[in-house]
Amino acid sequence: MLVCTKCGRKFEEKFLLQCECGGTLLVRRNYDSFLPDPRFFDIRRYLSYLPVDASFLPKIPPIITPVVEIEGIEFKLDYLHPTGSFKDRGTFVTIAKLKEEGISEVVLDSSGNAALSLAFYSMISGIKVHIFLSYDAKPGKISALMNLNAKVHFVEGDRMKVHDSALEFSKATGIPYVTHWLNPYFIEGTKTIAFEIYEEIGVPEEIFIPTGSGTALLGVWKGFKELMEIGEIERLPKLIAVQAEGFESLCPRSPRINKLADGIAIPNPPRLEDMKKALEETGGYCISVGEDDTLAAHHWLKARGLLVEETSATALAGYWKAREEGIATGNSLILLTGVKR
Amino acid sequence: MLVCTKCGRKFEEKFLLQCECGGTLLVRRNYDSFLPDPRFFDIRRYLSYLPVDASFLPKIPPIITPVVEIEGIEFKLDYLHPTGSFKDRGTFVTIAKLKEEGISEVVLDSSGNAALSLAFYSMISGIKVHIFLSYDAKPGKISALMNLNAKVHFVEGDRMKVHDSALEFSKATGIPYVTHWLNPYFIEGTKTIAFEIYEEIGVPEEIFIPTGSGTALLGVWKGFKELMEIGEIERLPKLIAVQAEGFESLCPRSPRINKLADGIAIPNPPRLEDMKKALEETGGYCISVGEDDTLAAHHWLKARGLLVEETSATALAGYWKAREEGIATGNSLILLTGVKR
Ligand SMILES: [Zn+2]
Ligand SMILES: [Zn+2]
Repeated sequence: MLVCTKCGRKFEEKFLLQCECGGTLLVRRNYDSFLPDPRFFDIRRYLSYLPVDASFLPKIPPIITPVVEIEGIEFKLDYLHPTGSFKDRGTFVTIAKLKEEGISEVVLDSSGNAALSLAFYSMISGIKVHIFLSYDAKPGKISALMNLNAKVHFVEGDRMKVHDSALEFSKATGIPYVTHWLNPYFIEGTKTIAFEIYEEIGVPEEIFIPTGSGTALLGVWKGFKELMEIGEIERLPKLIAVQAEGFESLCPRSPRINKLADGIAIPNPPRLEDMKKALEETGGYCISVGEDDTLAAHHWLKARGLLVEETSATALAGYWKAREEGIATGNSLILLTGVKR
Repeated sequence: MLVCTKCGRKFEEKFLLQCECGGTLLVRRNYDSFLPDPRFFDIRRYLSYLPVDASFLPKIPPIITPVVEIEGIEFKLDYLHPTGSFKDRGTFVTIAKLKEEGISEVVLDSSGNAALSLAFYSMISGIKVHIFLSYDAKPGKISALMNLNAKVHFVEGDRMKVHDSALEFSKATGIPYVTHWLNPYFIEGTKTIAFEIYEEIGVPEEIFIPTGSGTALLGVWKGFKELMEIGEIERLPKLIAVQAEGFESLCPRSPRINKLADGIAIPNPPRLEDMKKALEETGGYCISVGEDDTLAAHHWLKARGLLVEETSATALAGYWKAREEGIATGNSLILLTGVKR
């Protein structure tokens, strides 16, 4: 079932983004044991723990990403996916759910990794995607989306105007608006990050996660929580939300602006209450990083062949800052979420 | 040890490309059992079967690539690697061996996937790479190599002139020339394709493999052979070498030229005798495909989100042709080797 995180109301597992009370939704199922399917070495390994029917899954699965140790720090390379970001995990499950519901056309207002992932998985699953963008979206991203058969709608105006146009279009046409910020099935996909980490290295003491809309943070939190509810593990890893200066939602808002981390430049994420809970429950915290630290981390990663986007580099910058402040306990894992394009 | 495939002479496991008799070399070790390391879901899973010391391995491993079924055909997505091709498997093992030998500088004459893979893994392992190219190499490939810190040497003249210049440079400087066409450690890496297939779907009846220099074909052959020698499996899969018209080495040479499959446009591969043996021992055969069939296969793959280069598409074209001729037995697996750039 789906459960409202605010009022506790329960819903059938349909494609639903919010409760009538305005609360966000999470999928709730009970599992007896943790038994990954040994025939698969990709996300299908965890199919029993995903709220979708195998027959509706897209044909190209996100992979199990390696955890590697470089100069004493552990990284999970969660950018080695079909479209180059962890978003593929969430999209994969979302698309299966849309297919199950017979939805064949969707609307989104984004030009980032989530849009690319949605366009790719929609293309291979026969779903038509409308993407609303402002005229100043990067040409490379626009052409990538068009190559994946997305129908791009240009809107004159700022981010908010684009968002409104997408919602208006959705309302006028009846084509569902699918935002991963709210979509509970997206988090079902990203929770497999936790399952993999557990199989690869057990439960780390702490995990540093680039955090804007919270889809990575909440996935890792939910995955480990399910493992604990099953009785497979005895404690949760401390989750550290790394944010970008000027766009903090969990940390105090900085007067400076970190313009490098566009993947987490989300000042008012709709799942903020869920995100706070994830930090509280795991004994974690929020840490905010600026442009200089992001650049330094990005440079460090690049020199070691970790060719990720700047948004991912914030996680390392946050780890460095936490070490400096003496609040990182060691045995840390850093989640790298998106490839450099 | 290394064994000459022609005269049978044995050598210590040094970085050696050929026997004094001109024969090619293969690594020969005896394994008692097949026990993949369950802590890893990437190439490190098979470390006990690789002739290298863990301490010399590059930090970013090739992944375990998914096998997927699309419209009744099974594909192994061996392009979802850090640099986008199966070559990463061979390079990963090669670099570890070079490090073990204390080699810190190498020469290569290629602008293809193998060069990109070599440049990437060399960069992260502190090895300097000299790449010899003709002036008409594609600008995108040149800049990709330069971004990975490769030192590019331009040569006026055709492919043969470039090759000679690289060898001269190697001779004059003492910097080793590393070609994956001969390098036995490269095949040790590509043999993990077979280990994965076995863990994922057992032993298929037949595997279609794009074949130019034979590094994929020979890896798959050697991997399955080792599994049989261990007693883990009872038969080998039939290996089908798919070649491009005009560049056949195993099939009769066609008067037509397939210019689309540059990754296998290798008319005189130095491991030809080994490749013939792989077909003979497995009961396989060679099949050659033209441009039209390659294009059709490429189009089919692209529409299904298998965004691979044309060279990979030959494997599907070869499968179609074999089905048409009634020589494909079904239960076929198609190896997709390189991403579309
Ligand atoms: Zn509610
Ligand atoms: Zn010999």
